[in-house]
Amino acid sequence: MTTATQPNEVTASVDAWLSAFGDALAANDPARAAALFTEDGFWRDLVAFTWNLKTLEGRAEISDMLTATLARVQPTGWNITGGLEPAEADGVTEAWIDFETAAGRGHGHLRLRGGQAWTLLTTLYELKGYEEPKGPARPKGAEHGVNRGRTSWQEKREHEAEELGFTEQPYVLIVGGGQAGIGLAARLRQLSVPTIVVDKRARPGDQWRSRYKSLCLHDPVWYDHMPYLKFPDNWPVFSPKDKIADWLESYTKIMELNYWGNTEAKSASYNEATGEWTVNVERDGQAMVLRPKQLVLATGMSGKPNLPSFPGMDVFRGDQHHSSAHPGPDAYKGKRCVVIGSNNSAFDICGALWEAGADVTMVQRSSTHIARSDSLMEIGLKPLYSEEAVAGGITTEMADLIFASIPYRIMHLFQIPQYEQMRERDKDFYDRLEKAGFDHDWGDDGSGLFMKYLRRGSGYYIDVGAADLVANGDVKLARGQVDHLTEDAVVLADGTELPADLVVYATGYNSMNGWAADLISRQVADTVGKCWGLGSDTTKDPGPWEGEQRNMWKPTQQEALWFHGGNLHQSRHYSLYLALQLKARQAGIPTPVYGLQEVHHRS
Amino acid sequence: MTTATQPNEVTASVDAWLSAFGDALAANDPARAAALFTEDGFWRDLVAFTWNLKTLEGRAEISDMLTATLARVQPTGWNITGGLEPAEADGVTEAWIDFETAAGRGHGHLRLRGGQAWTLLTTLYELKGYEEPKGPARPKGAEHGVNRGRTSWQEKREHEAEELGFTEQPYVLIVGGGQAGIGLAARLRQLSVPTIVVDKRARPGDQWRSRYKSLCLHDPVWYDHMPYLKFPDNWPVFSPKDKIADWLESYTKIMELNYWGNTEAKSASYNEATGEWTVNVERDGQAMVLRPKQLVLATGMSGKPNLPSFPGMDVFRGDQHHSSAHPGPDAYKGKRCVVIGSNNSAFDICGALWEAGADVTMVQRSSTHIARSDSLMEIGLKPLYSEEAVAGGITTEMADLIFASIPYRIMHLFQIPQYEQMRERDKDFYDRLEKAGFDHDWGDDGSGLFMKYLRRGSGYYIDVGAADLVANGDVKLARGQVDHLTEDAVVLADGTELPADLVVYATGYNSMNGWAADLISRQVADTVGKCWGLGSDTTKDPGPWEGEQRNMWKPTQQEALWFHGGNLHQSRHYSLYLALQLKARQAGIPTPVYGLQEVHHRS
Repeated sequence: MTTATQPNEVTASVDAWLSAFGDALAANDPARAAALFTEDGFWRDLVAFTWNLKTLEGRAEISDMLTATLARVQPTGWNITGGLEPAEADGVTEAWIDFETAAGRGHGHLRLRGGQAWTLLTTLYELKGYEEPKGPARPKGAEHGVNRGRTSWQEKREHEAEELGFTEQPYVLIVGGGQAGIGLAARLRQLSVPTIVVDKRARPGDQWRSRYKSLCLHDPVWYDHMPYLKFPDNWPVFSPKDKIADWLESYTKIMELNYWGNTEAKSASYNEATGEWTVNVERDGQAMVLRPKQLVLATGMSGKPNLPSFPGMDVFRGDQHHSSAHPGPDAYKGKRCVVIGSNNSAFDICGALWEAGADVTMVQRSSTHIARSDSLMEIGLKPLYSEEAVAGGITTEMADLIFASIPYRIMHLFQIPQYEQMRERDKDFYDRLEKAGFDHDWGDDGSGLFMKYLRRGSGYYIDVGAADLVANGDVKLARGQVDHLTEDAVVLADGTELPADLVVYATGYNSMNGWAADLISRQVADTVGKCWGLGSDTTKDPGPWEGEQRNMWKPTQQEALWFHGGNLHQSRHYSLYLALQLKARQAGIPTPVYGLQEVHHRS
Repeated sequence: MTTATQPNEVTASVDAWLSAFGDALAANDPARAAALFTEDGFWRDLVAFTWNLKTLEGRAEISDMLTATLARVQPTGWNITGGLEPAEADGVTEAWIDFETAAGRGHGHLRLRGGQAWTLLTTLYELKGYEEPKGPARPKGAEHGVNRGRTSWQEKREHEAEELGFTEQPYVLIVGGGQAGIGLAARLRQLSVPTIVVDKRARPGDQWRSRYKSLCLHDPVWYDHMPYLKFPDNWPVFSPKDKIADWLESYTKIMELNYWGNTEAKSASYNEATGEWTVNVERDGQAMVLRPKQLVLATGMSGKPNLPSFPGMDVFRGDQHHSSAHPGPDAYKGKRCVVIGSNNSAFDICGALWEAGADVTMVQRSSTHIARSDSLMEIGLKPLYSEEAVAGGITTEMADLIFASIPYRIMHLFQIPQYEQMRERDKDFYDRLEKAGFDHDWGDDGSGLFMKYLRRGSGYYIDVGAADLVANGDVKLARGQVDHLTEDAVVLADGTELPADLVVYATGYNSMNGWAADLISRQVADTVGKCWGLGSDTTKDPGPWEGEQRNMWKPTQQEALWFHGGNLHQSRHYSLYLALQLKARQAGIPTPVYGLQEVHHRS
């Protein structure tokens, strides 16, 4: 890293660019504005210009977007964010910027190369007239003065619980009360959007409590904060499942969410004429109808189990279930367990079964990428999400924006060197895995775990210890495709017979639009198409290139239907933009969507 | 405010003083160290030197303390805190400092005048070898690796709940599960001190839920944070009672406290020989014995009702109760209500009764000080506890230390000008009160509300609106002493008869050592003597001068008996020093108490 330029020159170069950019926009001159980018420049916009999540690649796309949006957006006030000096390294100048539009206020991030914008990120953080009541604008709380019609906070909460969903309809219904659903609900409450969250389980956090006992977050605490309420300083690096469950339950209460537990969404249909959903739910066994204007599916990007159908599953006499239904190892001590799959769930379950004294075989059907947890933290996350990052002044919110500022098209280029480092650092580990016969990969282009996650949401394991069991043979490894099951065994294509008292199908999950098929209709599911993935044309992420993750946190081809989810980082960050999109619609602010995504795949 | 000196000169003057001070201490020369203070200089020590909370006034007291403690304490490393430049204004230089002792590490605050120390605050924040697991030292959480004896977080918590109080005894028993008790318990958990909190009510927060519905915190949010977990940014300025109750319940869970609800401490006795308490408790109606080494009474400095005994209370036919037992106004619409008293509770209750449509009379028996909430926030709290203070870099922890750095002996001198400002700002209000016949005072020396709170814990009202009801006659005002009650009236000494369906005795609370009398014995209560107050020789705070608040958060004349409480600010801040004192004893670190307070008053 070399710093060739003096700080005030760096700042001056950013000021000059922002001034020229602001002038071009004010002059309604898209071509001039686009010419301020490098030939291969990117502009990623989160809601501020496009009412969409959209990455524009190259000058032509930038110019087209501006041509379509400038007159309405009326962007002004392009400035360096106060207190944050631009910095230059290796010929790239980075700056935090602020701006505003006719509708709201935005934060941004800029990278200049040779005086031109290489990457620009623009994000909306609040709508004018609908600023969040927090900080200096926080609510007064208990009303001072005397008032004969006073109702207390508690009475207001009780009143709301009695009315919402009965005499008053929620504007938004969120199906799924995991961390994604409640984080979004917290943001919507801050924006005064009447919202109900429904979940089939009884209490917030039950999504975690109901899983196998060794389950924990594989991402560290700095990556996992919920909106508004950060984990305290004594929170463990890796949350055990019951602890995060209790946190989510407290969060739901503290954020005053309308959370309906024991409530299953059974079916839904949209009336285009009235712009209203009819959603049949069963609450505590009682049928009810809700009529929200907007429907958000937050049932989890890894929520819809992909259960394979192998010949003989009907004759197998032991226990068999998808990994998501695995009750934990307690009943399987001394039993022969076959786990089909070799990704995160498979390793977690193999490890727990082995710990409980089961005889365990993992069936690897295709190659898997493994990154060791400590290496991932040290190399992958430390610069943005770590104790050191926090101490260095990088707040969670800044880290989220820095991450968001890297265009998907070139993100793998930032990732590849990290995985080259990991390969070096953990050479012994990978050698042992290979020796054990494990089929390991680094992703189609060597870009490793996070790109696999973004492209296909599968194909990897963050090693928290179980990989060693495979490397040293404690967990037996079988490779190949499953041909069929017998009464008491799994038989592979090569004839290998694996005697089994238990078969766990750690065979992953289907696209989230499967939820829409179940809840609404196959037709609507096909209309919106596949969720997740970038169109990178790598394994399980077919092209064409999409530029953004399919259908996530942004308008879909089905009016008033939204998908929300991802890991805790994504749920936290993108819930802001989804909440603003929903609020704008509720407030009647025009939200013409620029570049609504096309559908190239059904699932 | 004039700044006469350049920043680097200021820093140099602090460095010079610290260097001379450090040298004198290292040379074991108490007289030389004391001579570095002004003649009227103060040194306030919170646990670091004295294993006590102690203010030393003048060179002789400072020299005496050092003579007694230096050899053991071995203080070193006196430095300006990194990142915090000393500042000079009006001839006083202020600096944040760090130091360490043989046993631990400390933060301090220094004020220099003419190159000599005018005030020095030294506080211990951690014990060597017993640092808290937080920040970079936070627990790992879920254990990586594979381990056949693995117990999950949930199993460990369940195991602890089964063992503690049964097969294992807590080191500390905290009686009282309000904000003070649970804040202390959170700190003790961080320090791995086995602790149980007992409270007679079912759930954490019930202390608030059970009170009248209009109750809210009269202090603003910035003043009210609990240890470790700050209120989120959207928390209201003044917490409604049920909202703070829910927060405390979540807090108890998040901090993993061993909280026994529905548990009443019935009696306790101390065995000097074994150094152990025998505490009889009733948990869910079941008698149990606990044997802690340390007993903390956190039942509230305003916890023990002072119910007067007026002739005729036995013949009065209406409802009558102490303010702490007042159920709220709902049953008293259209009824004649007499509230005896004119402080916080009296005003709150009068306001709520009037709102509910009752006919309300307040009986003022002695003068009261009233400060308007908004003026108190603007003039009294804003520099330390406000959105502005936070934005200016003054963390809650810094604000607490700044507040603690002002010696009680001269604190009123800092307060008087604030109340002079308030008198001016709210002149109309005070004129109207006077015109209505209200007997208003500003404290014996004009130092207002906070000094009254510290000296006597009574005699004031933070006006959140009800004072206007008295000023405008909506709530009727009667002045004088109560002579007796009849079947249906309160009769004052001047013969005034106040017809009443309800009498509320808003007559305040007795000293916390009354709790010790109830739980342990009158003898122990007398041994420890009066709690709270400074010995200021002002109304209800008899001399002699004590220098610190009597019996609060520090050793008492009864070994292993401690009192904890105060407002949210005090509970938060002083719980640290109480927790460190308890941890040191549990860890077997010698804790010779310097200057154990004498007892001058029994109640």
